[in-house]
Amino acid sequence: MERRKYLQIPGPTNIPSSVLNSLSKPTINHRGKEFEKLVAECVAGLKDVLKTKNDVLMFPSSGSGILESAIVNLFSPGDKVAAVCHGVFSERMADIAESHGLEVTRINVEWGKAVKPEDIVKVLEKDENKGLKAVCLPHNETTSGITNKLEDIMKAIKETGHPALTIVDSVSGLACMPLKTDEWGIDILVGGSQKGLMLPPGIGIVSISKKAWELVDKATMAKWYWDYKPMKERMEINQFRYTPPTNLLFGLKESLELIKEEGLENVWDRHKYIGDAVRISAKAMGLKLFAEEGYESNSVTAIELPEGVDYKKLASILEDKYNVIIGGGLRKLSGKIFRIGHLGSIFNTDIYAVMGAVEMALYEAGYKVELGTAGKALGELFTKNN
Amino acid sequence: MERRKYLQIPGPTNIPSSVLNSLSKPTINHRGKEFEKLVAECVAGLKDVLKTKNDVLMFPSSGSGILESAIVNLFSPGDKVAAVCHGVFSERMADIAESHGLEVTRINVEWGKAVKPEDIVKVLEKDENKGLKAVCLPHNETTSGITNKLEDIMKAIKETGHPALTIVDSVSGLACMPLKTDEWGIDILVGGSQKGLMLPPGIGIVSISKKAWELVDKATMAKWYWDYKPMKERMEINQFRYTPPTNLLFGLKESLELIKEEGLENVWDRHKYIGDAVRISAKAMGLKLFAEEGYESNSVTAIELPEGVDYKKLASILEDKYNVIIGGGLRKLSGKIFRIGHLGSIFNTDIYAVMGAVEMALYEAGYKVELGTAGKALGELFTKNN
Repeated sequence: MERRKYLQIPGPTNIPSSVLNSLSKPTINHRGKEFEKLVAECVAGLKDVLKTKNDVLMFPSSGSGILESAIVNLFSPGDKVAAVCHGVFSERMADIAESHGLEVTRINVEWGKAVKPEDIVKVLEKDENKGLKAVCLPHNETTSGITNKLEDIMKAIKETGHPALTIVDSVSGLACMPLKTDEWGIDILVGGSQKGLMLPPGIGIVSISKKAWELVDKATMAKWYWDYKPMKERMEINQFRYTPPTNLLFGLKESLELIKEEGLENVWDRHKYIGDAVRISAKAMGLKLFAEEGYESNSVTAIELPEGVDYKKLASILEDKYNVIIGGGLRKLSGKIFRIGHLGSIFNTDIYAVMGAVEMALYEAGYKVELGTAGKALGELFTKNN
Repeated sequence: MERRKYLQIPGPTNIPSSVLNSLSKPTINHRGKEFEKLVAECVAGLKDVLKTKNDVLMFPSSGSGILESAIVNLFSPGDKVAAVCHGVFSERMADIAESHGLEVTRINVEWGKAVKPEDIVKVLEKDENKGLKAVCLPHNETTSGITNKLEDIMKAIKETGHPALTIVDSVSGLACMPLKTDEWGIDILVGGSQKGLMLPPGIGIVSISKKAWELVDKATMAKWYWDYKPMKERMEINQFRYTPPTNLLFGLKESLELIKEEGLENVWDRHKYIGDAVRISAKAMGLKLFAEEGYESNSVTAIELPEGVDYKKLASILEDKYNVIIGGGLRKLSGKIFRIGHLGSIFNTDIYAVMGAVEMALYEAGYKVELGTAGKALGELFTKNN
């Protein structure tokens, strides 16, 4: 029998049924008026969610493609960039840059810790010749469940007076937590469809500041698919340069409307509330959060695997018996943490079910926890006036 | 923002997404070969679920329509029937019979209590002239959350030697709890699409034994829409006599396949397991079940409203804050009980969420309960090997 799924990997996420329904509409001509109207609405909605007046482009791709797009559009071989590295996805950014011949200064931070403004400032101040053309950093590192304090970091970078651009990967932050592209001065903001936007994977999103366009003009790196300039020309007439992900755009229009209807700030607040619920109930169960205190992500929580609990056993009990699907630790965190995604379309009753299932599965996997602990902690949180 | 709905009224129920998807297929010609194949598959599947070789007819109607169909097809004005009355839906059967000029001996049982074999046997034994042409009774009375012990009752009726037919309303029992139409000798079995079959409302189902057909031949009551004979003639060639609920039949085919895949007996067992979960957690919270002990329904649980808790307040907290939709008490039970439907597509994690929400909403409505009680009770049940 088909069961109701609780898809709690750190994205792709549960998709609201109205979005699923939009996806099922018959595909339309991507050279027609109806499509142009759709693109215009999606771009306008994305600008609202990114809080930007910069150009916003969409590509048929996953988020990693957009990370690559930033590298090949902004730089020339041999250019220098700094990249914060504290997880699989931020390291990927550095890897992509190196693959294309950039010289990368890695700002290594222990996984699970946030990058602090001073970590970046130090590198920029040391760069007396202003050779660094950009600083790359993640808004939210999905690997470890930490959120960097982007506003403070952006401010500190500006204050150095260094001309480096900022390239921010907010794939798992976008539409989940405060993000003010223009106010904070983010030159390149990278997002994807499959996280806070509550869509299947397939649309990569990028916003490009005026300062970034200046770099694009000078960049000599070879590119075709990711080329911003011809894509921008097409998007200005609400077209794609090549076959677009038409049905995903139906879904994007619907999800942007859902976000608008709830209110973007309310969506952020809800993610904070649900994030609190996960942390409070996890701590009540005696679990340890992997993320540095004060920097815990509101879209994904990484929890240390209790001693003696095997991740595969835990995950399979959760999936097979409780139909809750979680994520494991990546690379060096494999077998050390498990991760619960709580982003997009998720509400109090859903997370109550998820944390209850986590409690029962941990118990069954050998962890000593008093059954009902999560229910008590969440009951106390949810029954407070809010 | 659209939230995940926990539709826990006692039917219509949550619909699995594969069934929803079937419903969205383009409507087909209901006089074509594709439709005939669909009807044949649905009828065969329904016979499996009803465990019958009797004729099974479908009507575009709700369950109440099929109750009426039995009356107008089997009887003539002035005929006598006995009808067990212990809730809104069993009383409706008697009301319908009287509306059509039948003389009804009501076997009144206190709401919340089951009808016992002897209650019916007594009436039949008193009927020395064998004037009663049928006994009508519900399998599962949705009003009060009780399930009659149908197997024992059918056996006791047979043992009296009385020739009365049996008309059983299993609208809320079908595909939720053991039902063996032929083995138990049920002449008319009435069902609907919107409960254990996990479909929207709109298909009424009836199975008709040979003995019942004999009565149909003699019945003189006026009828057209509900007329079994012409509908049977059409269904024998896998057609309907008039416009059928085409898309619901797409869904029915899918839901019958889901049931077959899980195994009908496993579906019954799962309803028992989920019913136990509701009862165990409700009792742990200090709540009182309304149904007579030993006769509690596995598709709907009626719970006495604790003193001082207002139903409307409870239901609105549940719906507005937790997105769980429950049912209230009907007629004389209004304001005295609340009802939780747990039939169709429902599993352990879902009911965990529902009972947790009930606990929190009761707490917020002024009921004294230690938060976490439901989670503890369900945790203990679900973590047992099963």
